[in-house]
Amino acid sequence: MRYSLFAGGKRIRPLLVLAAGEAVGGRTEALLPLACAVEMIHTYSLIHDDLPAMDDDDLRRGKPTSHKVFGEAIAILAGDALLTRAFHLLVDVAAPDVDVRRRLRAAAILGEAAGTSGLIGGQVADLEAEGEDITIGALQDLHRAKTGALLRACVVGGGVLGGAGEEDLDRLHRYGDAIGLAFQVVDDVLDETASAAQLGKTAGKDAAAGKATYVRALGLEGARTVSRGLLEEARAAIAPLGPRASLLGALATLIVERDA
Amino acid sequence: MRYSLFAGGKRIRPLLVLAAGEAVGGRTEALLPLACAVEMIHTYSLIHDDLPAMDDDDLRRGKPTSHKVFGEAIAILAGDALLTRAFHLLVDVAAPDVDVRRRLRAAAILGEAAGTSGLIGGQVADLEAEGEDITIGALQDLHRAKTGALLRACVVGGGVLGGAGEEDLDRLHRYGDAIGLAFQVVDDVLDETASAAQLGKTAGKDAAAGKATYVRALGLEGARTVSRGLLEEARAAIAPLGPRASLLGALATLIVERDA
Repeated sequence: MRYSLFAGGKRIRPLLVLAAGEAVGGRTEALLPLACAVEMIHTYSLIHDDLPAMDDDDLRRGKPTSHKVFGEAIAILAGDALLTRAFHLLVDVAAPDVDVRRRLRAAAILGEAAGTSGLIGGQVADLEAEGEDITIGALQDLHRAKTGALLRACVVGGGVLGGAGEEDLDRLHRYGDAIGLAFQVVDDVLDETASAAQLGKTAGKDAAAGKATYVRALGLEGARTVSRGLLEEARAAIAPLGPRASLLGALATLIVERDA
Repeated sequence: MRYSLFAGGKRIRPLLVLAAGEAVGGRTEALLPLACAVEMIHTYSLIHDDLPAMDDDDLRRGKPTSHKVFGEAIAILAGDALLTRAFHLLVDVAAPDVDVRRRLRAAAILGEAAGTSGLIGGQVADLEAEGEDITIGALQDLHRAKTGALLRACVVGGGVLGGAGEEDLDRLHRYGDAIGLAFQVVDDVLDETASAAQLGKTAGKDAAAGKATYVRALGLEGARTVSRGLLEEARAAIAPLGPRASLLGALATLIVERDA
């Protein structure tokens, strides 16, 4: 659990939780349990996706994958335990300044995003799409589930814990949708253009595996144009939140303009 | 998920939730989310434990194991999804007659029982004990975590959702400890004495794998004596609850006197 959780990574998901919560006036202490939980869920999904039975990857965040170091059994259990700990943390940590109903709601948002209509459903669709020609619409659905749902849950869940009203939650929801999709489009571009040293994982692997990617569907320039359009959408959605949302805006830019 | 969840099984864990909740005056509707959640967690743990990288079992509840039917990748994901859905259910289902704080507390009890100090920690200890000679004390610690923690969480969590006071929770806690340990002792006895047809899983497997078992430590008769003593402990713990606890008493008997 420690090896994979502390192997580095960009920490984009916890940053999104904190930035969204602070954009609506929430206190950091109230946001930290969710910030930690989403990184645990992200890390568990990487450990399991990297297993020989799944994507069979040797390298993650620049280090050997969990099963390469500890064996498959412990890698499976480390993933299970991170997923369990994520939910436990959300319902267990004393956060006296957060309304109990808001804590339940944030946990439910995370449950939805991590389950069959989100992260896990998307991974199943991804496995099934391997070597298949799928439409750009089906590709978007797949990534909205596999990557987008959790990223959006970070933003909306952070808003819920931060005390946002429904109108602001709707804004965060639209921002989360846009950056979620942008994240995957940029991932596909980087899979084609960046080196393994930059990415900390095997490069060019999705294309080689015949996986559906945005670059395969739209070409490199087409994919870049889509990601820039999504960045504008994200910025427009949170503009009404004013200067408190500046960190959210900066994270959207970081997601689209990153080179790893 | 459906294949494994609806493959039969004795449903002892959900029955314990309902029996414990009703013993302290709770309503069935308030208990059902936890009753379903504990069976989902139990089922996920079976799917993952049966994987080739773990116990490598072909048969479970009289049917081929998940990975035999759907392949390893889908079996891993089905387990992940059942675990996720269990927590989601607990925090999401509308249960207007249950205090929100009690729902959070029940979810936290389940999180503790399913994590590294419970189910998963016990499975790791079990993998590490394979082929080793371990003391009866270490064996008890292992099973208290691997099997006992979740069984106890059913009882205590059901009590929490049923509205129990701290004194009754303490009684349920002691009952849960006793039946949790009894459950594993009887499992070890059955692994030696019952047929695969009775068990719905490969028989004699733990002994063959050189696993630490109560029978190996105490002999068949010694193990049976221990299980009968634990049954008495369990009954004594809930005696003050009176006739409302009769189903709990019957379940303790069922656990100790079952033949499969």
